[in-house]
Amino acid sequence: MIMAMKLFTYPQAPSPRRIHLFLAEKGMEIEQYIVDIRAGEQHGEGFAGKSRQHTVPLLELDDGTCLGESMAICRYLEEIQPDPPLLGRDARERAVVNELDHWLEINGLLAVMDGFRNAVPGLKDRALPGPRPVPQIPELAERGRRCYGYFMHDLDRLLAGREFLAGDYFSVADITALVIVDFASWGIKARIPIELQHLSDWHRRVSARPTIATCS
Amino acid sequence: MIMAMKLFTYPQAPSPRRIHLFLAEKGMEIEQYIVDIRAGEQHGEGFAGKSRQHTVPLLELDDGTCLGESMAICRYLEEIQPDPPLLGRDARERAVVNELDHWLEINGLLAVMDGFRNAVPGLKDRALPGPRPVPQIPELAERGRRCYGYFMHDLDRLLAGREFLAGDYFSVADITALVIVDFASWGIKARIPIELQHLSDWHRRVSARPTIATCS
Repeated sequence: MIMAMKLFTYPQAPSPRRIHLFLAEKGMEIEQYIVDIRAGEQHGEGFAGKSRQHTVPLLELDDGTCLGESMAICRYLEEIQPDPPLLGRDARERAVVNELDHWLEINGLLAVMDGFRNAVPGLKDRALPGPRPVPQIPELAERGRRCYGYFMHDLDRLLAGREFLAGDYFSVADITALVIVDFASWGIKARIPIELQHLSDWHRRVSARPTIATCS
Repeated sequence: MIMAMKLFTYPQAPSPRRIHLFLAEKGMEIEQYIVDIRAGEQHGEGFAGKSRQHTVPLLELDDGTCLGESMAICRYLEEIQPDPPLLGRDARERAVVNELDHWLEINGLLAVMDGFRNAVPGLKDRALPGPRPVPQIPELAERGRRCYGYFMHDLDRLLAGREFLAGDYFSVADITALVIVDFASWGIKARIPIELQHLSDWHRRVSARPTIATCS
Protein backbone atom coordinates (compact mmCIF):
# COMPACT_ATOMS: atom_id res chain seq x y z
CA MET A 1 0.00 0.00 0.00
CA ILE A 2 1.56 3.31 -1.06
CA MET A 3 0.37 6.34 0.90
CA ALA A 4 0.28 9.85 -0.52
CA MET A 5 2.61 11.33 2.08
CA LYS A 6 6.29 12.22 2.00
CA LEU A 7 8.88 10.80 4.35
CA PHE A 8 12.08 12.82 4.70
CA THR A 9 14.73 10.48 6.00
CA TYR A 10 18.31 9.29 6.26
CA PRO A 11 17.89 5.55 6.74
CA GLN A 12 21.29 4.92 8.38
CA ALA A 13 20.54 7.22 11.32
CA PRO A 14 18.83 5.73 14.41
CA SER A 15 15.61 7.78 14.62
CA PRO A 16 14.71 7.33 10.93
CA ARG A 17 15.38 3.61 11.34
CA ARG A 18 12.53 3.44 13.88
CA ILE A 19 10.16 4.58 11.13
CA HIS A 20 11.58 2.26 8.46
CA LEU A 21 11.19 -0.78 10.73
CA PHE A 22 7.69 0.34 11.72
CA LEU A 23 6.70 0.68 8.05
CA ALA A 24 8.20 -2.72 7.24
CA GLU A 25 6.19 -4.37 10.05
CA LYS A 26 3.05 -2.63 8.77
CA GLY A 27 3.77 -3.50 5.14
CA MET A 28 3.37 0.16 4.20
CA GLU A 29 5.34 2.20 1.69
CA ILE A 30 5.72 5.96 1.65
CA GLU A 31 7.50 8.09 -0.93
CA GLN A 32 10.95 8.87 0.47
CA TYR A 33 13.22 11.87 0.18
CA ILE A 34 16.78 11.53 1.44
CA VAL A 35 18.11 14.41 3.55
CA ASP A 36 21.90 14.04 3.67
CA ILE A 37 22.56 14.83 7.32
CA ARG A 38 26.28 14.11 6.92
CA ALA A 39 26.43 17.01 4.47
CA GLY A 40 24.30 19.22 6.77
CA GLU A 41 21.27 19.28 4.44
CA GLN A 42 18.93 19.32 7.47
CA HIS A 43 20.03 22.90 8.15
CA GLY A 44 19.50 24.02 4.54
CA GLU A 45 16.62 26.32 3.61
CA GLY A 46 14.55 23.71 1.80
CA PHE A 47 14.27 21.33 4.73
CA ALA A 48 14.69 23.60 7.76
CA GLY A 49 11.43 25.39 6.92
CA LYS A 50 9.55 22.14 7.47
CA SER A 51 11.35 20.96 10.59
CA ARG A 52 11.27 22.62 14.01
CA GLN A 53 14.39 20.79 15.15
CA HIS A 54 16.15 20.29 11.77
CA THR A 55 15.91 16.54 12.21
CA VAL A 56 14.86 13.46 10.31
CA PRO A 57 12.56 11.56 10.19
CA LEU A 58 9.90 14.03 9.08
CA LEU A 59 6.52 13.02 7.71
CA GLU A 60 4.73 15.55 5.53
CA LEU A 61 0.99 14.91 5.26
CA ASP A 62 -1.14 15.73 2.22
CA ASP A 63 -2.26 19.05 3.74
CA GLY A 64 1.31 20.16 4.42
CA THR A 65 1.31 19.29 8.14
CA CYS A 66 4.82 18.18 9.11
CA LEU A 67 5.47 15.68 11.88
CA GLY A 68 9.07 15.58 13.05
CA GLU A 69 8.87 13.29 16.07
CA SER A 70 9.21 9.53 15.69
CA MET A 71 6.41 8.40 18.01
CA ALA A 72 3.99 11.03 16.66
CA ILE A 73 4.69 9.60 13.20
CA CYS A 74 4.21 5.99 14.37
CA ARG A 75 1.01 6.86 16.21
CA TYR A 76 -0.39 8.59 13.12
CA LEU A 77 0.50 5.63 10.89
CA GLU A 78 -1.15 3.28 13.40
CA GLU A 79 -4.34 5.37 13.26
CA ILE A 80 -4.58 5.32 9.48
CA GLN A 81 -3.56 1.66 9.24
CA PRO A 82 -4.37 -0.20 12.47
CA ASP A 83 -3.20 -3.66 11.30
CA PRO A 84 -1.05 -5.21 12.51
CA PRO A 85 -1.33 -3.29 15.80
CA LEU A 86 2.10 -2.15 16.99
CA LEU A 87 1.02 0.18 19.80
CA GLY A 88 -1.03 -2.31 21.79
CA ARG A 89 -4.43 -3.91 21.23
CA ASP A 90 -6.57 -2.22 23.91
CA ALA A 91 -6.40 0.80 26.24
CA ARG A 92 -4.35 -1.02 28.87
CA GLU A 93 -1.84 -2.43 26.36
CA ARG A 94 -1.57 0.91 24.63
CA ALA A 95 -0.77 2.54 27.98
CA VAL A 96 1.87 -0.09 28.75
CA VAL A 97 3.53 0.25 25.32
CA ASN A 98 3.41 4.04 25.57
CA GLU A 99 5.00 3.91 29.02
CA LEU A 100 7.71 1.50 27.87
CA ASP A 101 8.55 3.41 24.74
CA HIS A 102 8.93 6.64 26.70
CA TRP A 103 11.15 4.93 29.25
CA LEU A 104 13.32 3.54 26.41
CA GLU A 105 13.62 6.94 24.81
CA ILE A 106 14.45 8.94 27.95
CA ASN A 107 16.70 6.38 29.66
CA GLY A 108 18.17 4.56 26.67
CA LEU A 109 18.14 6.71 23.56
CA LEU A 110 19.00 9.97 25.33
CA ALA A 111 21.86 8.27 27.21
CA VAL A 112 23.39 6.97 23.96
CA MET A 113 22.77 10.34 22.28
CA ASP A 114 24.54 12.13 25.17
CA GLY A 115 27.42 9.66 24.89
CA PHE A 116 27.64 10.05 21.12
CA ARG A 117 26.93 13.73 20.47
CA ASN A 118 29.18 15.00 23.27
CA ALA A 119 32.16 12.97 22.08
CA VAL A 120 32.23 12.75 18.27
CA PRO A 121 34.58 15.36 16.73
CA GLY A 122 32.19 15.99 13.80
CA LEU A 123 29.47 17.19 16.21
CA LYS A 124 31.67 19.68 18.09
CA ASP A 125 29.01 22.40 18.46
CA ARG A 126 26.05 20.08 17.86
CA ALA A 127 25.69 18.35 21.22
CA LEU A 128 21.92 18.77 20.81
CA PRO A 129 19.94 18.74 17.58
CA GLY A 130 18.29 22.00 16.56
CA PRO A 131 19.07 25.23 14.78
CA ARG A 132 21.44 26.66 17.43
CA PRO A 133 25.00 25.62 18.29
CA VAL A 134 25.35 23.73 21.60
CA PRO A 135 28.92 22.93 22.73
CA GLN A 136 29.90 19.44 23.82
CA ILE A 137 30.31 18.58 27.53
CA PRO A 138 32.80 15.69 27.90
CA GLU A 139 31.48 14.86 31.38
CA LEU A 140 28.02 14.39 29.87
CA ALA A 141 29.42 11.98 27.27
CA GLU A 142 30.84 9.91 30.09
CA ARG A 143 27.55 10.09 32.05
CA GLY A 144 25.69 8.94 28.92
CA ARG A 145 27.89 5.87 28.55
CA ARG A 146 27.51 5.01 32.24
CA CYS A 147 23.72 5.45 32.20
CA TYR A 148 23.46 3.32 29.06
CA GLY A 149 25.21 0.54 30.98
CA TYR A 150 22.55 0.80 33.74
CA PHE A 151 19.86 0.82 31.06
CA MET A 152 21.08 -2.46 29.53
CA HIS A 153 20.91 -4.12 32.94
CA ASP A 154 17.37 -2.83 33.51
CA LEU A 155 16.35 -3.98 30.05
CA ASP A 156 17.79 -7.44 30.69
CA ARG A 157 15.84 -7.74 33.96
CA LEU A 158 12.64 -6.60 32.24
CA LEU A 159 13.06 -9.26 29.54
CA ALA A 160 13.38 -12.19 31.98
CA GLY A 161 10.65 -14.65 31.04
CA ARG A 162 9.25 -12.45 28.28
CA GLU A 163 9.33 -12.96 24.55
CA PHE A 164 8.92 -9.27 23.79
CA LEU A 165 9.29 -6.09 25.81
CA ALA A 166 5.57 -5.63 26.47
CA GLY A 167 4.99 -9.36 27.09
CA ASP A 168 3.79 -11.90 24.54
CA TYR A 169 3.23 -9.51 21.64
CA PHE A 170 5.63 -7.58 19.40
CA SER A 171 5.25 -3.80 19.66
CA VAL A 172 6.89 -0.53 18.72
CA ALA A 173 8.79 -0.78 22.02
CA ASP A 174 10.78 -3.69 20.52
CA ILE A 175 11.59 -1.54 17.51
CA THR A 176 12.73 1.38 19.65
CA ALA A 177 14.86 -0.85 21.88
CA LEU A 178 16.46 -2.62 18.90
CA VAL A 179 17.35 0.71 17.31
CA ILE A 180 18.90 1.95 20.57
CA VAL A 181 20.95 -1.22 21.15
CA ASP A 182 22.24 -1.26 17.55
CA PHE A 183 23.01 2.47 17.62
CA ALA A 184 24.94 2.08 20.90
CA SER A 185 27.07 -0.71 19.41
CA TRP A 186 28.57 1.64 16.81
CA GLY A 187 27.82 5.09 18.27
CA ILE A 188 29.44 4.61 21.67
CA LYS A 189 30.99 1.16 21.11
CA ALA A 190 28.83 -0.37 23.85
CA ARG A 191 27.93 -3.97 23.09
CA ILE A 192 25.62 -6.21 25.14
CA PRO A 193 27.66 -7.72 28.02
CA ILE A 194 27.83 -11.50 27.80
CA GLU A 195 26.14 -12.00 31.19
CA LEU A 196 22.95 -10.23 30.02
CA GLN A 197 21.45 -13.37 28.52
CA HIS A 198 17.82 -12.24 28.34
CA LEU A 199 18.83 -9.13 26.44
CA SER A 200 21.13 -11.08 24.08
CA ASP A 201 18.45 -13.66 23.34
CA TRP A 202 15.80 -11.01 22.71
CA HIS A 203 18.19 -9.09 20.45
CA ARG A 204 18.88 -12.19 18.37
CA ARG A 205 15.18 -13.09 18.20
CA VAL A 206 14.00 -9.64 17.16
CA SER A 207 16.85 -9.07 14.68
CA ALA A 208 15.90 -12.34 12.95
CA ARG A 209 12.30 -11.29 12.23
CA PRO A 210 11.93 -11.38 8.41
CA THR A 211 10.61 -7.79 8.26
CA ILE A 212 13.54 -6.53 10.31
CA ALA A 213 16.28 -8.67 8.77
CA THR A 214 15.35 -7.55 5.25
CA CYS A 215 14.87 -3.89 6.20
CA SER A 216 18.09 -3.41 8.16
CA MET B 1 -16.96 10.87 38.30
CA ILE B 2 -14.67 8.89 40.65
CA MET B 3 -12.60 6.17 38.96
CA ALA B 4 -11.43 3.02 40.74
CA MET B 5 -7.74 3.69 40.21
CA LYS B 6 -5.02 5.05 42.47
CA LEU B 7 -2.93 8.10 41.73
CA PHE B 8 0.36 8.36 43.59
CA THR B 9 1.38 11.99 43.54
CA TYR B 10 3.04 15.01 45.08
CA PRO B 11 0.91 17.86 43.74
CA GLN B 12 3.54 20.62 44.15
CA ALA B 13 6.01 18.91 41.78
CA PRO B 14 5.83 19.73 38.06
CA SER B 15 5.11 16.31 36.51
CA PRO B 16 2.29 15.44 38.93
CA ARG B 17 0.81 18.89 38.26
CA ARG B 18 0.37 17.90 34.59
CA ILE B 19 -1.96 15.11 35.73
CA HIS B 20 -3.87 17.24 38.23
CA LEU B 21 -4.57 19.90 35.59
CA PHE B 22 -5.52 17.22 33.07
CA LEU B 23 -7.97 15.66 35.56
CA ALA B 24 -9.43 19.10 36.38
CA GLU B 25 -10.04 19.81 32.67
CA LYS B 26 -11.69 16.38 32.32
CA GLY B 27 -13.75 16.80 35.49
CA MET B 28 -12.42 13.46 36.74
CA GLU B 29 -11.46 12.47 40.26
CA ILE B 30 -9.11 9.66 41.23
CA GLU B 31 -8.24 8.47 44.72
CA GLN B 32 -4.91 10.08 45.65
CA TYR B 33 -1.98 8.90 47.72
CA ILE B 34 0.71 11.44 48.58
CA VAL B 35 4.33 10.29 48.16
CA ASP B 36 6.48 12.76 50.07
CA ILE B 37 9.35 13.22 47.63
CA ARG B 38 11.00 15.83 49.87
CA ALA B 39 11.37 13.11 52.50
CA GLY B 40 12.61 10.57 49.91
CA GLU B 41 9.50 8.36 50.12
CA GLN B 42 9.75 7.58 46.39
CA HIS B 43 12.84 5.46 47.14
CA GLY B 44 11.14 3.57 49.98
CA GLU B 45 10.18 -0.08 49.60
CA GLY B 46 6.43 0.47 49.43
CA PHE B 47 6.53 2.79 46.44
CA ALA B 48 9.75 1.80 44.64
CA GLY B 49 8.31 -1.65 43.88
CA LYS B 50 5.61 -0.02 41.75
CA SER B 51 7.76 2.56 39.99
CA ARG B 52 10.53 1.86 37.50
CA GLN B 53 12.04 5.32 37.94
CA HIS B 54 10.97 6.05 41.56
CA THR B 55 8.96 9.00 40.34
CA VAL B 56 5.51 10.50 40.69
CA PRO B 57 2.98 10.69 39.15
CA LEU B 58 2.12 7.01 39.06
CA LEU B 59 -1.27 5.63 38.12
CA GLU B 60 -2.14 2.16 39.39
CA LEU B 61 -4.94 0.51 37.44
CA ASP B 62 -7.46 -1.94 38.90
CA ASP B 63 -5.44 -4.95 37.69
CA GLY B 64 -2.23 -3.67 39.31
CA THR B 65 -0.68 -2.27 36.12
CA CYS B 66 1.39 0.77 37.05
CA LEU B 67 1.89 3.70 34.68
CA GLY B 68 4.70 6.05 35.68
CA GLU B 69 4.93 8.33 32.68
CA SER B 70 2.80 11.48 32.46
CA MET B 71 1.73 11.24 28.82
CA ALA B 72 0.98 7.49 29.08
CA ILE B 73 -1.31 8.37 32.00
CA CYS B 74 -2.99 11.22 30.09
CA ARG B 75 -3.46 9.07 27.00
CA TYR B 76 -5.03 6.29 29.08
CA LEU B 77 -7.39 8.74 30.79
CA GLU B 78 -8.35 10.17 27.39
CA GLU B 79 -9.19 6.66 26.16
CA ILE B 80 -11.45 5.83 29.08
CA GLN B 81 -13.05 9.29 29.14
CA PRO B 82 -12.81 10.94 25.71
CA ASP B 83 -14.71 14.15 26.64
CA PRO B 84 -13.61 16.86 26.52
CA PRO B 85 -10.86 15.79 24.08
CA LEU B 86 -7.45 17.07 25.22
CA LEU B 87 -5.25 15.14 22.80
CA GLY B 88 -6.81 16.37 19.55
CA ARG B 89 -10.12 15.63 17.85
CA ASP B 90 -9.01 13.57 14.81
CA ALA B 91 -5.91 11.70 13.59
CA ARG B 92 -4.23 14.82 12.24
CA GLU B 93 -4.88 16.89 15.37
CA ARG B 94 -3.78 14.03 17.60
CA ALA B 95 -0.52 13.82 15.63
CA VAL B 96 0.03 17.57 15.95
CA VAL B 97 -0.65 17.57 19.71
CA ASN B 98 1.57 14.51 20.18
CA GLU B 99 4.37 16.18 18.22
CA LEU B 100 4.04 19.44 20.18
CA ASP B 101 3.91 17.77 23.56
CA HIS B 102 7.04 15.78 22.81
CA TRP B 103 8.83 18.91 21.64
CA LEU B 104 7.81 20.71 24.86
CA GLU B 105 9.04 17.85 26.99
CA ILE B 106 12.41 17.33 25.30
CA ASN B 107 13.28 20.97 24.65
CA GLY B 108 11.49 22.69 27.53
CA LEU B 109 10.98 20.34 30.46
CA LEU B 110 14.34 18.56 30.13
CA ALA B 111 16.16 21.91 29.84
CA VAL B 112 14.57 23.19 33.07
CA MET B 113 15.19 19.82 34.75
CA ASP B 114 18.86 19.95 33.72
CA GLY B 115 19.08 23.51 35.06
CA PHE B 116 17.35 22.60 38.31
CA ARG B 117 18.64 19.12 39.17
CA ASN B 118 22.27 19.92 38.38
CA ALA B 119 22.31 23.03 40.59
CA VAL B 120 20.13 22.48 43.67
CA PRO B 121 22.19 21.43 46.73
CA GLY B 122 19.48 18.99 47.90
CA LEU B 123 19.84 16.96 44.67
CA LYS B 124 23.62 16.61 44.82
CA ASP B 125 23.73 12.99 43.59
CA ARG B 126 20.28 13.03 42.02
CA ALA B 127 20.92 14.87 38.74
CA LEU B 128 18.63 12.31 37.09
CA PRO B 129 15.63 10.57 38.62
CA GLY B 130 15.89 6.84 39.16
CA PRO B 131 17.24 4.35 41.67
CA ARG B 132 20.95 5.07 41.11
CA PRO B 133 23.01 8.09 42.17
CA VAL B 134 23.96 10.43 39.30
CA PRO B 135 26.32 13.32 40.20
CA GLN B 136 25.54 16.89 39.18
CA ILE B 137 27.34 18.52 36.23
CA PRO B 138 27.45 22.32 36.74
CA GLU B 139 28.08 22.91 33.02
CA LEU B 140 24.86 21.04 32.25
CA ALA B 141 22.91 23.25 34.67
CA GLU B 142 24.17 26.25 32.76
CA ARG B 143 23.33 24.64 29.39
CA GLY B 144 19.82 23.87 30.69
CA ARG B 145 19.22 27.52 31.62
CA ARG B 146 20.54 28.70 28.23
CA CYS B 147 18.43 26.19 26.27
CA TYR B 148 15.34 27.14 28.26
CA GLY B 149 15.90 30.73 27.12
CA TYR B 150 15.93 29.54 23.48
CA PHE B 151 12.83 27.48 24.18
CA MET B 152 10.86 30.49 25.46
CA HIS B 153 11.71 32.39 22.28
CA ASP B 154 10.59 29.46 20.10
CA LEU B 155 7.39 29.14 22.12
CA ASP B 156 6.68 32.85 21.72
CA ARG B 157 7.11 32.62 17.95
CA LEU B 158 4.86 29.57 17.79
CA LEU B 159 2.12 31.40 19.71
CA ALA B 160 1.99 34.40 17.35
CA GLY B 161 -1.59 34.65 16.11
CA ARG B 162 -2.73 31.57 18.04
CA GLU B 163 -5.03 31.29 20.99
CA PHE B 164 -3.58 27.96 22.10
CA LEU B 165 -0.44 25.99 21.29
CA ALA B 166 -2.09 23.66 18.79
CA GLY B 167 -4.21 26.44 17.24
CA ASP B 168 -7.79 27.30 18.15
CA TYR B 169 -8.37 24.50 20.67
CA PHE B 170 -7.06 23.88 24.17
CA SER B 171 -5.01 20.68 24.49
CA VAL B 172 -2.66 18.82 26.79
CA ALA B 173 0.17 20.74 25.10
CA ASP B 174 -1.09 23.90 26.84
CA ILE B 175 -1.04 22.06 30.16
CA THR B 176 2.49 20.78 29.61
CA ALA B 177 3.78 24.22 28.54
CA LEU B 178 2.10 25.95 31.50
CA VAL B 179 3.65 23.50 33.94
CA ILE B 180 7.10 24.02 32.39
CA VAL B 181 6.89 27.83 32.42
CA ASP B 182 5.66 27.89 36.04
CA PHE B 183 8.30 25.35 37.13
CA ALA B 184 11.06 27.40 35.47
CA SER B 185 9.97 30.53 37.29
CA TRP B 186 10.78 29.03 40.70
CA GLY B 187 13.08 26.11 39.77
CA ILE B 188 15.68 28.06 37.80
CA LYS B 189 14.36 31.62 38.44
CA ALA B 190 13.68 32.13 34.72
CA ARG B 191 10.67 34.36 34.15
CA ILE B 192 9.10 35.22 30.78
CA PRO B 193 11.08 38.15 29.28
CA ILE B 194 8.93 41.25 28.80
CA GLU B 195 9.49 41.32 25.02
CA LEU B 196 7.88 37.88 24.56
CA GLN B 197 4.37 39.28 24.35
CA HIS B 198 2.68 36.27 22.72
CA LEU B 199 4.00 33.97 25.43
CA SER B 200 3.02 36.38 28.23
CA ASP B 201 -0.50 36.79 26.84
CA TRP B 202 -0.96 33.04 26.41
CA HIS B 203 0.35 32.41 29.95
CA ARG B 204 -2.13 34.90 31.42
CA ARG B 205 -4.99 33.48 29.32
CA VAL B 206 -4.35 29.83 30.20
CA SER B 207 -3.66 30.52 33.90
CA ALA B 208 -7.04 32.27 34.14
CA ARG B 209 -9.06 29.25 32.98
CA PRO B 210 -11.43 28.38 35.83
CA THR B 211 -10.28 24.72 35.90
CA ILE B 212 -6.65 25.77 36.13
CA ALA B 213 -7.04 28.75 38.45
CA THR B 214 -8.93 26.64 41.01
CA CYS B 215 -6.59 23.62 40.70
CA SER B 216 -3.26 25.45 40.98
